[in-house]
Amino acid sequence: MNNFSLEGEIVHLEGLRFTPAGLPVLSMRIKHHSKQSEAELSKMVNLEIEAVMIGKLTGSDLALGNKCLFHGFLEKKSLKSNQIIFHITQINK
Amino acid sequence: MNNFSLEGEIVHLEGLRFTPAGLPVLSMRIKHHSKQSEAELSKMVNLEIEAVMIGKLTGSDLALGNKCLFHGFLEKKSLKSNQIIFHITQINK
Repeated sequence: MNNFSLEGEIVHLEGLRFTPAGLPVLSMRIKHHSKQSEAELSKMVNLEIEAVMIGKLTGSDLALGNKCLFHGFLEKKSLKSNQIIFHITQINK
Repeated sequence: MNNFSLEGEIVHLEGLRFTPAGLPVLSMRIKHHSKQSEAELSKMVNLEIEAVMIGKLTGSDLALGNKCLFHGFLEKKSLKSNQIIFHITQINK
């Protein structure tokens, strides 16, 4: 299992590009702020994460500042980098 | 919402330490490998993520090489770093 659900705001949105196989790709950065509970204490949590959408989903008419609920999985950016990328596979606007 | 569920193997496990308030903290690194579906294609996904457990959960008798299902939320490591830390709040061994 590798499931991530995040409510957040699009704070950076790149232009549409295409994979060598011709699939549309949209890269963005999502900002999140919430209260979470840990060890019976509540704490304020901040997160900014690089995200990407591939295929039909890129036609979801997203814009800078949109606040959505994003679902998907996490992956290493590349073999050499441990940076984490959120692959979005579903959006609730 | 900020929910992350990951099946993975503990590939690095630090010794127990304590917060200034005396709460036990256990830091580790979790390795994950799975097949995911994206844009109607299936792909092999690799992930290695820094994780932390705070409080009673640190008594879960974990060891290097354990494969578990971890649940929790993601947070920025610090104000100055965008590195992402997985805060584990529940474990299924």
